[in-house]
Parts: sequence; C-alpha cells; structure tokens
Amino acid sequence: MSRPRRFLILAEGNFGPMSSKTANACIRYAPRDVAVVLDSAAAGRTSQDVLGFGGGIPVVGTFEEAMQHNPTALLIGIAPPGGQFPLEWRALLIMALRAGLDVWSGLHTLLGDDAEFAKCAAESGATIRDLRRAPADLDVSYGRVREIDATVILTVGSDCNIGKMTTQLQLLDSVRARGHRVAFAATGQTGILIEGRGIAVDAVIADFIAGASERLTIEAAADADIVLVEGQGSIVHPAYSGVTLGLMHGALPHAMILCAQPSRTTVNRNPWVPIPTLSELIRLYEQLAEPLRPAPVVGVALNTFDLSDIEAHEAVERAKAETGLPVTDPVRFKPDPLAEALDAFHRERLDALAALR
Amino acid sequence: MSRPRRFLILAEGNFGPMSSKTANACIRYAPRDVAVVLDSAAAGRTSQDVLGFGGGIPVVGTFEEAMQHNPTALLIGIAPPGGQFPLEWRALLIMALRAGLDVWSGLHTLLGDDAEFAKCAAESGATIRDLRRAPADLDVSYGRVREIDATVILTVGSDCNIGKMTTQLQLLDSVRARGHRVAFAATGQTGILIEGRGIAVDAVIADFIAGASERLTIEAAADADIVLVEGQGSIVHPAYSGVTLGLMHGALPHAMILCAQPSRTTVNRNPWVPIPTLSELIRLYEQLAEPLRPAPVVGVALNTFDLSDIEAHEAVERAKAETGLPVTDPVRFKPDPLAEALDAFHRERLDALAALR
Repeated sequence: MSRPRRFLILAEGNFGPMSSKTANACIRYAPRDVAVVLDSAAAGRTSQDVLGFGGGIPVVGTFEEAMQHNPTALLIGIAPPGGQFPLEWRALLIMALRAGLDVWSGLHTLLGDDAEFAKCAAESGATIRDLRRAPADLDVSYGRVREIDATVILTVGSDCNIGKMTTQLQLLDSVRARGHRVAFAATGQTGILIEGRGIAVDAVIADFIAGASERLTIEAAADADIVLVEGQGSIVHPAYSGVTLGLMHGALPHAMILCAQPSRTTVNRNPWVPIPTLSELIRLYEQLAEPLRPAPVVGVALNTFDLSDIEAHEAVERAKAETGLPVTDPVRFKPDPLAEALDAFHRERLDALAALR
Repeated sequence: MSRPRRFLILAEGNFGPMSSKTANACIRYAPRDVAVVLDSAAAGRTSQDVLGFGGGIPVVGTFEEAMQHNPTALLIGIAPPGGQFPLEWRALLIMALRAGLDVWSGLHTLLGDDAEFAKCAAESGATIRDLRRAPADLDVSYGRVREIDATVILTVGSDCNIGKMTTQLQLLDSVRARGHRVAFAATGQTGILIEGRGIAVDAVIADFIAGASERLTIEAAADADIVLVEGQGSIVHPAYSGVTLGLMHGALPHAMILCAQPSRTTVNRNPWVPIPTLSELIRLYEQLAEPLRPAPVVGVALNTFDLSDIEAHEAVERAKAETGLPVTDPVRFKPDPLAEALDAFHRERLDALAALR
C-alpha cells in the first residue's frame, strides 16, 4: 500500500455485534487502521459501546462528520446476503471517491467494474479495491494440497457467520507461542482485508471453488508448518453448503475445528432448517472428509457472545461432555485448549510421518 | 430459433464413447439436428461405428469436407476439464463464423465475449450461443422450492461423467407413459443444448449455486407434476463436490437416483480417490439431504457401456443385492424399473399429502 490506511467504515443502519461482520473484524484485528464508523442509528456512541471492543473509535451520523477524522479510505462494513450493492449508497461512494478516499469492498458486485465509480476514482486518484475479485487464471482442483508438508487445519461450522474466521485469527498467536510457524489462509473478503492476501472462494466460478481453495492453501503453506484455513458457510446451510464442501475438498485439511453458537437453533435466515447437534455435525463433516483425506474434528469453538458468564461456562462444559473434545470460546476465554489440541495433533502427525520414513 | 439447426460437431481428436460428452448427447437425443462430425482421427467412419448409435452421421477430417454437409451451426462437442478453450481451435471458429455458421459452446470461456469472435459473427450475421452464460440476476437460495407441489427427483453420482443427465433423459418417456406431466430441469451445458432452457450451475458464482438450482427447479415445475433434475459431479469428486452439494440443497429433491459405473474404481482424473461402495454413497447422500429435506435414494442407474451383456446383467444383479433397490442400465436395458420406482414414490407422496389435508 502506498499510504497507511485509515478507514471510514460504512455500516449505515447496521453497526452491531452480529450485523456488521466486516466492520467488526476490521475493528477487532486492525483497530489502528480504523478512523471512524458511519452509522446514523448509532451516532454519538463508540465502538466499545456498540460492540464491546474497539475502544474509543467514534461512530458518526454523516459523511461530513466522518471526514473530520481524516480517513484515507472508505470500507464497506457490511455484507448483505447475496452481496448486492444497495443503491442508496451510490451517492455516498461517489462523494467519497471525489474526496480522494480509496474504496474497499467485499461485495459480490465488483465496484471497480462500475463505469461511474471508475471514472470518479480515476479523476481523484483514488483506488477501488474489490476484495472478492477472483484471480483470472483459476482452474479445477487436482488434489495438489497432498504435495505440501504443512499440517492443514480447517474451521467448519454449524452455520454461517458463527466464528470460523475469528477462531483461526484468535489461534494464530497461541499456536505460534507453541513454537510453530503458522499462517492464516483467508477465504473470504474480511479475512483477505485483514491478512492482505487470499481468495474469496464464494465469489469464484462454481467449478473452481476447490481449485481456488487448493491454491490459497498451498500459497499459505510456503512459509508455515501449520496452515489455519478460514472456513465458509456450513454443510447444512441451504445457500452456502456448496462453497463449504468445495473448500473442504480443495483445502484437504488434516484436522478440523467445529464452530457453533449454543444459542442458535436454526440456520441463519432459514428458520426451516434446524441446526443438528454437535455430534451429528462432527459425524457429517468427518464422513465427507473420509473418502478424500480422513480428517478428525479435534476441537470445538463456541461463540457465546450472547450468553452470561455462567451460561457460557455451562455451554462449554456441555459441549465437552457431548463431544469428548477440547472446547472453548476463543474470544471470550483463552484459545489455548484449541491451540493445545492443534499442537498435539501436529506433533503426532510429524511423529507418524517420521516413523514411515 | 430463426432457422432449423444442423450441427457441424467439433470433436477433433476426441470423438468417442467416453470422450465427447456433449457431441454424444446431442447425437443421442437430437440426431436429426446433426449434419456431420469433425474429427480427423475418426474420419471416414460414421457415428454408429464410433459410438454405437447415431446411424449414418458422417465423421470427416477437414472443415471443407464438413461444409459439404450444409451445416448451419458449429457445436463445440467436447468439454475439457476447467472448460478452457483450446487455442488451436481459434482459426477454425473464425472460419466457421465467417462462413455464417452460428457457434454453440458449453465452455466456461464465454466465446461471445471474445472481441474477434464477436466481430466475425456481427459481420456474417451469425449468432454465438454460450450455453454456460449465467443469468445476470441470480441470488442466493431461500428454500423456495418447498413452495411448489411437484415431486422433485435428482440424479446423484459416484463420479462425474457417469450418466446423471442421460438417466433423466432416458426416463422422460417412460415416466410420461405412466400418466404424469414430467419436465427435465437442465443444469449443465449439454442438458441446456437438448432442452433449450436451464442454467449451467457449475458456471455461476459459487454463492449462487443453490440459488440457481432453486430457480431452474421452480421454472421446470411450472408445467409438470414430476421434475427430473439433472445432477452434477459427485459428493466425493475433489473438484466438483461443491457444485454437487449446492445443487442438491438448492433443488431440494424429494427422492434421488444414484448413478454409477461398475467398472470405475477411482474418481475421474483423480486416481488417488477410490469410489465408495453403492451403500456408502447412498448413506452419504441421504445424510446430506436429511437436515434440509429428507430424500431417499429410490433406485440405481448403472452405466455398463464397457461391459459384456453377461457382465452387465451380473452388475445389475449385484447392485440389486447390495442396495435392495430397483436397478437398471437405462440406456442398455429399459429404464422401466426406475420409472416404476418414481411412479410409486410420486403416488405415495400424493397419498400422504392428501391424508394430511
């Protein structure tokens, strides 16, 4: 990047713990890159007030107020279903581009392909960064991940928007502290925003989901012994299960971490689909991995943000009893039980490989 | 279409029972639309000689010879992995377009977007039909298939290129003969070529696989009591499993037919993946359907093209014994055992619905 980025995060009407995934992840993992949040419904509050983290990052109600915080870029902070660009934001984006702000977007609609946006950017010297733009030279997968040495860990979920990216990001330091070279492989627009590389696997041509997953896993493995691949969707999500399975069969993890939210009983925006039990989900994911490369679920990450402390502890204990696996909420509590499980799994794998050589 | 289509089918170097899927399906289901096949390796033979069907459709070795059969359109008759357009065909396509032939293509690379092809077509008045071009207004799925009355049947497979489209096409007449209004829902370029409508679900943006599948299923149900949805790939195919599952969760079948090839032991182009047994595949597919809409596998379609008559009969009997289901090769033998199973399933479903009302 040519200049340090200071984001104006657009989250109009939707800044909240569960409604502004991209905004929240940026604030959690790159808070120093965030100048201000724009949401007229929460104006006057701070990120800390609204999310419970992010300190004094201010929330303002108008573009003019936001500009007083000297942003260098506008980040689209929400990801509506289907990724369509809300028309009412058009004027705002044009204002931002004319003011010389770069625009970062993770939407399916590629803003850089819009003639008017492109013209405004060219005139002011701003850059439009579409995080979901797929590489032009993707191919189908061929199981090439089997050629790398690194241990590949994938987060899988009971639903979308439940903590699959967050779990891997929370684990990075903790796994590194155990003496491993570790890399995060980003598969979604927010992960790419934070990591600076990756492919949004939900935005590629359907035939290339696994091929893209194979490629980003291999790239992340270049400088790592353990690759933490960001999972997507859920095997039981009516809209996104194809992406979930394609990612799984392209990345070919050696082991998986199951992510779930104890308070959620039906799939996001699909109340007609009850979420199976943890044991059922573990069985289903392991069975789907089995024909290509067996991969056990070695731990469970719970998202307990909407529970009391007592309820959260109870949920962790219940999940431990049900699955017999290490369980934690890697945001609320320490990620260490999962990091220990990965450390042990990786060492056992190396020992088994050494014994074969 | 403005004029009857008479295809010159391009299958250069690859005209054969298992190597030219699009060519073969066109010859099998629309033989009167085929004027000639171009493949210098098989020149001088007929379709009957090479495929065992298609009668006297000639195979020639040069474009000039092919033009003597008065084609009105050139059909790309093969689908290479990844759908990339072989560069050496470029000159041939330009010749065809300049001669006024329409070009029909099911490749991922959209030929109509190529400036030189588009220019040649415009100059001669020819049309370029990209069968894999996705509708511009796709969305994610919302389970809307649950609102239609028709019985939805999906073919699922042990592998790709194994008979999922062919099984449904072979069943159409046989199911219709049992008194049902039946529709074929095309999900791949060849099915769309034959049916005249549909969406190539492997060519849409990954997030929209299920949404596209939902839409094409609902469209096919408009004038049918039973919808036969063309399956794609396999749940154990490393490259295509995402498309397979997305299609399944978008189309939400009431029942499934499993397609397999007895002689095939590993996945197409992926010898490192052994194909599970029929029973294992049935269990896996039924488990994946279960959380959204339970769907039993009600029959097995075997592709026995490479077996002797005795071997084919033995394979059918073995599959019957293993699964306890009706089994046939719907091309080699009659499709009736499967049509009867669908007829019975549909009537039982109607009875159960009537009892609930």
